[in-house]
Amino acid sequence: MKTIKLGLIGLGTVGGGTLAILRDSADLLQQRVNANIEVSIIAVRDLNKPRAVDTGSIQLTDDPTQVVNHPDVDIVVELMGGTGLARELVLRAIDNGKHVVTANKALLAEHGDEVFAAAEKQGVQVAYEAAAAGGIPIIKALREGLSANNIDWVAGIINGTGNYILTEMKQPGADFNAVLKRAQELGYAEADPTFDVEGIDAAHKLTILASLAFGIPLQFEKVYTEGISRISADDMRFADMLGYEIKHLGIARRTDDGVSMRVHPTLIPKSVLLANVSGVMNAVMTHGDHVGPTLYYGPGAGAGPTASAVVADIVDVVRALDCAPDARVPALGFRTTRDLPVMDMEAVQCAAYLRFLAKDAPGVLARFSTVLAEQGISIEHMHQEPCDDGSGDALVVLITNEVPESAMNTAIAALEALPEIDGTVQRIRIESLS
Amino acid sequence: MKTIKLGLIGLGTVGGGTLAILRDSADLLQQRVNANIEVSIIAVRDLNKPRAVDTGSIQLTDDPTQVVNHPDVDIVVELMGGTGLARELVLRAIDNGKHVVTANKALLAEHGDEVFAAAEKQGVQVAYEAAAAGGIPIIKALREGLSANNIDWVAGIINGTGNYILTEMKQPGADFNAVLKRAQELGYAEADPTFDVEGIDAAHKLTILASLAFGIPLQFEKVYTEGISRISADDMRFADMLGYEIKHLGIARRTDDGVSMRVHPTLIPKSVLLANVSGVMNAVMTHGDHVGPTLYYGPGAGAGPTASAVVADIVDVVRALDCAPDARVPALGFRTTRDLPVMDMEAVQCAAYLRFLAKDAPGVLARFSTVLAEQGISIEHMHQEPCDDGSGDALVVLITNEVPESAMNTAIAALEALPEIDGTVQRIRIESLS
Repeated sequence: MKTIKLGLIGLGTVGGGTLAILRDSADLLQQRVNANIEVSIIAVRDLNKPRAVDTGSIQLTDDPTQVVNHPDVDIVVELMGGTGLARELVLRAIDNGKHVVTANKALLAEHGDEVFAAAEKQGVQVAYEAAAAGGIPIIKALREGLSANNIDWVAGIINGTGNYILTEMKQPGADFNAVLKRAQELGYAEADPTFDVEGIDAAHKLTILASLAFGIPLQFEKVYTEGISRISADDMRFADMLGYEIKHLGIARRTDDGVSMRVHPTLIPKSVLLANVSGVMNAVMTHGDHVGPTLYYGPGAGAGPTASAVVADIVDVVRALDCAPDARVPALGFRTTRDLPVMDMEAVQCAAYLRFLAKDAPGVLARFSTVLAEQGISIEHMHQEPCDDGSGDALVVLITNEVPESAMNTAIAALEALPEIDGTVQRIRIESLS
Repeated sequence: MKTIKLGLIGLGTVGGGTLAILRDSADLLQQRVNANIEVSIIAVRDLNKPRAVDTGSIQLTDDPTQVVNHPDVDIVVELMGGTGLARELVLRAIDNGKHVVTANKALLAEHGDEVFAAAEKQGVQVAYEAAAAGGIPIIKALREGLSANNIDWVAGIINGTGNYILTEMKQPGADFNAVLKRAQELGYAEADPTFDVEGIDAAHKLTILASLAFGIPLQFEKVYTEGISRISADDMRFADMLGYEIKHLGIARRTDDGVSMRVHPTLIPKSVLLANVSGVMNAVMTHGDHVGPTLYYGPGAGAGPTASAVVADIVDVVRALDCAPDARVPALGFRTTRDLPVMDMEAVQCAAYLRFLAKDAPGVLARFSTVLAEQGISIEHMHQEPCDDGSGDALVVLITNEVPESAMNTAIAALEALPEIDGTVQRIRIESLS
């Protein structure tokens, strides 16, 4: 039986989890592939740091170039993260003829085209199941399981921190900042939560999912991104009353005008399975022209789930080591990328939930309906309740029809300019996911 | 570019759907694999039957042996169903060195070991994504996506007809027979619904899922199977009141005592995502030792979804045509099957919901608690309501702890023998899916 040698870069949460599976499940892995899988070398940041995982006799180094240049290493497993040094190391590994397994969503979202092109040129594999939605095998599902379909859209809860916060905010009156603080105490959110809460992490993953769905190049810079920090207890209450859940979704949709890619808080009907995904769990829903809707649910982070995806990739890469490159699954599932335009957000069509304070007086409804009508926006549902703060204002909630973002932006600016409207207009987009 | 030739056996719903995808999505498929995929010959039952799908210049025959013996055919796509002739044809195709794609769950559940062994001997592939849960790529998920995990259990809603009926029965007072009749009128249930309603179809699929999860031989004959026809409007009402949904699940679980395989109505907590899968949709939930819980949802039947899985298999098989057999994914994901014992149903441990009519008199509760206690069964929850039929009976519902099936069977027989209990005891097993 042949022996396949791995070099790991990074021994944090995911690296430690990967090492643990390779060691604890060695029997299982031998039943999966006709080879011994061994770790030859691991690059760590600090050689003196105490570690929870036993590295045994494996060579440790604090110079990651030793891993990518190591003559014995067949597969480099990049688990360090980031887009600077990680990019250099991955490209060097590929250049040295090594296959790569990575969990690095930022690297692929920002430099995926370069990485995949280099791998194709060298005839090596780059596997990245852990780079989106952690333990859920969504990369494989989109790339292989649904390969007979033209994908119409993908919509996912792909950041567990954000979903935990929105789930907790369903408690009556719960406030974003208080919930975020609790999430930080529980270790579900980082001290600086920007990356998760403002949607950057989700945008990285969405970039990858969109490229898999539509066969387009990786274009992180074209993802419209909006975070969840402006969602209020009122929004949670109204959404519930109107039959919706608020979820922070990454959405990629193909239309006749091009592909839209966006991350934003979204009202989705409670009747849709995705609306029932709560806490830190992730789920990705997609619609294919033949299969219709399918959904994939599971843990999106953590040592075990992420390492589960990393090791599944290792198994796939080991199996296909001796195959001709043409016989392997292409990195994005397509032999060549497709040149589909990515729509500017201004052109994307969405229905919306609008919430604002308006003077509770005759004629006010007519004023804001007129402003909306001027942009071709009709009100499909309206709810109004008097404020009990003695202001004489009413809290108004509207559900609109589907209109281009540009029209909605113009209408919102016009609404905010009305003397009868007090303060800003909250807008949350709506997706029926049907 | 090379041309790969298919021979189809069967041109019913799935065959027609497959032909439609191969024709309508030819461009997409060429972007997937570096080959032209052509259908050379199709075997049909009746050459004179008018067909919805245009077969163009493809040769039609009513002799399926022509397909499996055809010198030009590289891949035989078996979509005729059944276990007699289909088995002979698939084995003949393999013997002739042809790869096989099949949607035939009965064939694999009952003769999978024979088919896979023949394929291994000949070095050909047998792909069968469409044989369980239709359009959901659950075979690929279990076999490849979760390959780093020892699977603890799989639990699925894997028969759309049954799930449609149970969903409709949630309407207050809805009766099984009335709902079944409506399902038949809508085309969701066959004129003879036995196959779906009594769980045989689900047992076929469960057999396959269990073998993928645990690497065991295919042992359909060892699946305990119980249908949904005894579920009453009262059961639906009580389940709801107690925080459960009733679902017809296929469950395979690995314990220290062996593997259990069973299909039966099951109470599952409403808080579990699987409980929210309604109508004709399918979903499979599984738990792996590293990844934890994941769930896969989608349409389990129909031309488009099933053909989506068939064509994804064709793509996989075409890609790996020139790979060494060792470099391909083994049929069940394991290089050799594992010899795990399958538990007798009597040894399986389950909590249960019990419903029966009892005399509404002092001392009755003590009588049936004693009978249960004698078998080590404790009552975790009890609900009792007087019958309004003047019988002086009360409708009693109990939730028990987890005990071996043998103890529960003995207890139920003892309960039914009590003079204070009127008629039979309804038992529905409970799974927490955690």
